[in-house]
Order: sequence, then structure tokens, then C-alpha cells
Amino acid sequence: MHAALSLAARGLGRVAPNPAVGCILVKNGTVVGRGWTQPGGRPHAETEALRRAGQAASGATAYVTLEPCSHFGKTGPCAVALIDAGIVRVVVATVDPDPRVSGRGLTMLREAGIEVVEDVLRDEARALNKGFFLTKTDQRPFVSLKLATSLDGRIATATGQSKWITGPEARQDAQMIRASHDAILVGIGTVLADNPALTRRLPGIQEQPIRIVLDSRGRLPPDAVFCNGGQDSLQIVAPDCTTPPPSGVDRLTIARDADGFLSIPLILERLADQGITRLMVEGGGTVATHFLKSDLVDRIYWYRAGLAIGGDGVAGLSGPGWSNLGDAPRFRFVSGRIVGPDRLDVLERTP
Amino acid sequence: MHAALSLAARGLGRVAPNPAVGCILVKNGTVVGRGWTQPGGRPHAETEALRRAGQAASGATAYVTLEPCSHFGKTGPCAVALIDAGIVRVVVATVDPDPRVSGRGLTMLREAGIEVVEDVLRDEARALNKGFFLTKTDQRPFVSLKLATSLDGRIATATGQSKWITGPEARQDAQMIRASHDAILVGIGTVLADNPALTRRLPGIQEQPIRIVLDSRGRLPPDAVFCNGGQDSLQIVAPDCTTPPPSGVDRLTIARDADGFLSIPLILERLADQGITRLMVEGGGTVATHFLKSDLVDRIYWYRAGLAIGGDGVAGLSGPGWSNLGDAPRFRFVSGRIVGPDRLDVLERTP
Repeated sequence: MHAALSLAARGLGRVAPNPAVGCILVKNGTVVGRGWTQPGGRPHAETEALRRAGQAASGATAYVTLEPCSHFGKTGPCAVALIDAGIVRVVVATVDPDPRVSGRGLTMLREAGIEVVEDVLRDEARALNKGFFLTKTDQRPFVSLKLATSLDGRIATATGQSKWITGPEARQDAQMIRASHDAILVGIGTVLADNPALTRRLPGIQEQPIRIVLDSRGRLPPDAVFCNGGQDSLQIVAPDCTTPPPSGVDRLTIARDADGFLSIPLILERLADQGITRLMVEGGGTVATHFLKSDLVDRIYWYRAGLAIGGDGVAGLSGPGWSNLGDAPRFRFVSGRIVGPDRLDVLERTP
Repeated sequence: MHAALSLAARGLGRVAPNPAVGCILVKNGTVVGRGWTQPGGRPHAETEALRRAGQAASGATAYVTLEPCSHFGKTGPCAVALIDAGIVRVVVATVDPDPRVSGRGLTMLREAGIEVVEDVLRDEARALNKGFFLTKTDQRPFVSLKLATSLDGRIATATGQSKWITGPEARQDAQMIRASHDAILVGIGTVLADNPALTRRLPGIQEQPIRIVLDSRGRLPPDAVFCNGGQDSLQIVAPDCTTPPPSGVDRLTIARDADGFLSIPLILERLADQGITRLMVEGGGTVATHFLKSDLVDRIYWYRAGLAIGGDGVAGLSGPGWSNLGDAPRFRFVSGRIVGPDRLDVLERTP
């Protein structure tokens, strides 16, 4: 199942709105087929594994990271495909979180006389597809916040120097993390200051994430790289915005919250509706703080360079924060590594 | 020699102005004596090891982390003691950095017919006693800067809440680091705000570090815990200071630098004169930034709690920093660990 989870992870960021699933078929101690959810969400992992195994699937055990689907959609259900292929045993990491379908796939398998084992590495499987699960249970995507700062949390000097605080290794590393998210969100300030492409620049990765800009007053310039074709772009504005969306850019209108900022919970609900399961927030400082204040950040990726900028530098988390320490959401350090001369810490919200 | 270096490290912070040395005596593959520089700087490591070995020292090999001394001070030189004890071979990590004595101890041993091996783990030994070495080569102590902040580098909320951002584990861990330094330095703002004891609160550690406050205008209150007896306290003021030092507190007058701040290079020169080899700077934010701007910080201990405070919080590094990124001193991440819910990163100045 560990191997199946590794296969599943290949799909993260490229299979939304579907979950990223891995499947391994084993017969007589030998792997006869492997599959994972393909870009775009289809074919499913089981279909891929069965296709690769061919006749060898008959009599095999299937290790699947998520309960095989039981509904008839664009293709037949995976549970039926497994039955038809002569699979004799199915080991599943977790059932589907959607209460309307949860357990149905397993019932279908059992009724066909197949032995079913549940909850093998269940927690790991749920963590992997937490974005897909959250869209079903909380009507929102999994939210990662990425920051790249000096030791003292600054993203630019007082005079505006910011390229580059962290090194090329960290930027390349961040591309890998970007690749595992369906959409990248920035504030309009970042677009106006840096004109970022927000693309995945990695060999072997064609699919691009959806680009999202929080732009309450509609200041997105039509000639920004953000608006270029070949990649979905979404501008989120407030109801009082009076400018038209630039050509080729989708628009979403979201109410302001009590602070006058675009409502983060409403934004996330709408993004989940659009099938986004994993969202990466890349700044700037105001947007980062607002997401943290909404307490809807699940994971933080924080790169730090080994230098300080000082008290007059631009903060990576700007704007009013928490006056009461007890109100600030707590995160635990779950992993980290040295990346070139810099360091990445990964933190997750404590339960 | 690795074991001898571990023994040597026990003395750090308690042997100034002497170096922290370790010595292991081995005969026929068996350790017959171990010693390290004792609190206060005497007895020396070799004397201790020879005392413990007794008659068994005869015919043994001595592993010593620093060239045995050759001068007649309060006691006879260690080189002579090793010769008299019948040591047949001496393995040394590094010669003494002081050019006036460097190599003399080894010559003394060789002239007595003892086999001498040099430069075994030399770099490690020099790193361990870098403070002692710097007082000889640069007329200044080794300088550590300790910070304990939120993820975004803040030490308090906008309303002044600061106890506690990092947890009890981190505070206990910092006591261990404090124990390896001869003196602890803070700014007067920290004394006025927190009234810290600046003691080592660890079982088995009696010796207390010298307390130093940067207090250019002489605002140290006589009833501050800082002024309490039983521990050396040093107030550093500017020439224009008009108040007398509180009872029991030593005073040093240091010229102001171009920014109107007490001159860090001059302070360090005077502290080296006083025999301080390892100085720990504990803040606050203005003092920390000024030390970094002087580029005389050798090592940074940075504890971070897994929460953010926001752009209106109090910065751990406050005051004007570097407007040109290229001017900011670079540090490399040399080690780190999880401490309770917090994380410690240790960084050292890149050469």
C-alpha cells in the first residue's frame, strides 16, 4: 500500500476534481500491474493497472488507495472492472468520504464474492487526498501557503530589493510543490509588482495550474503575463468593482468581509465548486496574513535564506495580525530540508 | 580524539579566559585516564587525566585537543607533567593559536623523546575553541546571537503580549546554550521590560555567566534583578552618561559609533581584554540588529514557534537593516532540531 500511495501522489495537482489514486495488482508475489489516476482525472488508477496487467489480472490481489468507484459516469465503475477482470481480493486504504457513495464500491465487490480488506494505511491515504476529501466534507480545497523570506521574515529591503532572497534551488523546489496543486493564488499587488507567470516550469509537466488573482477593485492589467493564453486565469473581484475582466480571464465576484477584504471562506467555497481540490497561496504579505487570519490554511511551506533584512524591510506577513497570542492558529513542524543555501520548513495546522 | 573533544566541550562557558580542553590517556587499548579543563580554567585537562590515571599513565598515549602548555604559571606546564608521568606518545588536535607560544609545548615533548602527532581533527578542535582562538587572533570573543520568535520573526504582539511565544522546552534548551557561554548580553530595553535574571538554571551548574547590559544613557534601575549579588554584572554606558552605576555593578564606558549606538567592535575588544571568550547576545531587537550590522556575529541560535503574529507585531530584529541585500551578512544552516513544539535552527557566518 505504501507503493500504491507513492503512485497516487504522482497525480496530485493534475487530476482535480478527482482524487489522486494509486493501484497495484499482485499475483503470486509478483506485481502484474500498476496504475495511477491520469492527468485530467481519467483513466482511473484501477483501469490503468488492469490495462497494463491484461490477462495476468485474473486471480490477482488489488491494492487501491481509495475505495473503487461504483457509479456509472463517463466510463463504467472501477468496481465492475475489477470484478470482470477476475480480481479475487481487494485491499483498500480508505472508503470514499462522500457519504452518498461511501461503502457502495466495497459492497459491490463483496457481493461478487471478492474478499475485501479495509483501512490499510487509512490515515496516510486520507492525508494524501485531503484536498479531495475537504471538497466533500467542508466545501473547500486544501490550502497551502508558501512563503520565501529572510531569516527575519522579510521579502524585500526598505528600498524594495527582493530578487532574489532565496536561491535558485529554492525556486526550483517551489516549482515541485506548485506542481502538486491545482491552482495558484496571488494578490493583485504581486501581479502589479512582479508580473509573475505562475506556471510550472518542470520537465515532463505539461498541465498548468489555474492562476487566480485576488483583485477586489479590478486592477489587473490586460497586458499582464497573468492574462496570457494557454492557462486558465481567474480574477476575483468585489461587487463594487467597475472594470471589465481582461480578455481571456474568467471572473468571480465575492462579497467583502468585515475587514473590507474579499471573503476567504466564500472564495474557497466557490473554488471547491469549480473542482479545485488543492490551492497554493503564494502571497503577497497582505493576502498571506488574511488567509492565516481566516484560519483556513492547512499547510505552510516556508523557505528562508540565511540572511536578515532588518526592521525596515517588507514583511512576508504584513498588515494587522493577532493582538491576542491565543487567537493565532498554531502549526506544527512536520518536515523540512536544506535546499541549496536555504531551508524549507513544512508546517501543518495543529488539530 | 572525538571523545576528547566531547570532554573538552564540557568546559565551554566555564573556563574563560582559558580554552576548554579534553585529554584521554590510553594504554594497551584501554582508557586509563580522562580529564577536561575544570571550572575557572584550572586544573588543566592533562593534569586531571594524569591524576585519575595515577601510575597507569606510564607508557600511555595522550590524546589532547590542544597543544599542552609550556609556560610556568600558577602550576607547572602540562608538557612537563606529561613527560614526568612517562607518557610515550602525544596526539594533538591543534597547536596553540598564540604565536608567542605556538609549537613550544610540542617541541618540549619531542626533546624529551616523546612521539608527537599533530593536526588530528584540527578543524573540529579549532571550531570548538573558536572563542579562545578569536581572543588571541582578533581581540574579540566568539559571538552567538539568540532569538526566539514567531514564524514571522516577531517577539510580541502589537499589544505587547510576549510570554510565551516559544514553549518551556525551548526555554530549557536555551539554558543549555547559555551554559556554554561566559557572558550574556542584553539591551537596557530588555532589562526594563522583562527584568530578566540572566542566570543558568540547570541542575549541576553552579557557575553563573557574567551579565552585561548595553545601557548608553545609564538607565539601569538599582532594584533590577540584573543588579543582584552572586553574579558579575557589567553595565556598558556611553561617555555622556551622567548617572552613577548601581551598587555591585561594574561599569565600562564605550564611545558611540556613527549611528549613535555603543561601538560594538570596541565593546568586544574590551570584553576580550576581560577574558571573555564566548559571548551570547540575547536581544532585544535593536541590539540584535546592531550586532548583525557590525558583522561580528559568528553563530545564530534561532528558536521559532509554529505560529504567526502579523505585520503589526514587534520584530525580533528591529530598527533599520540593510537597504542593499548584498551588504547583509550571509549565514549557513549548520544544524537544527525540533524542541517541543518549536524548532531551533543554528546558523554560522559563511566565510
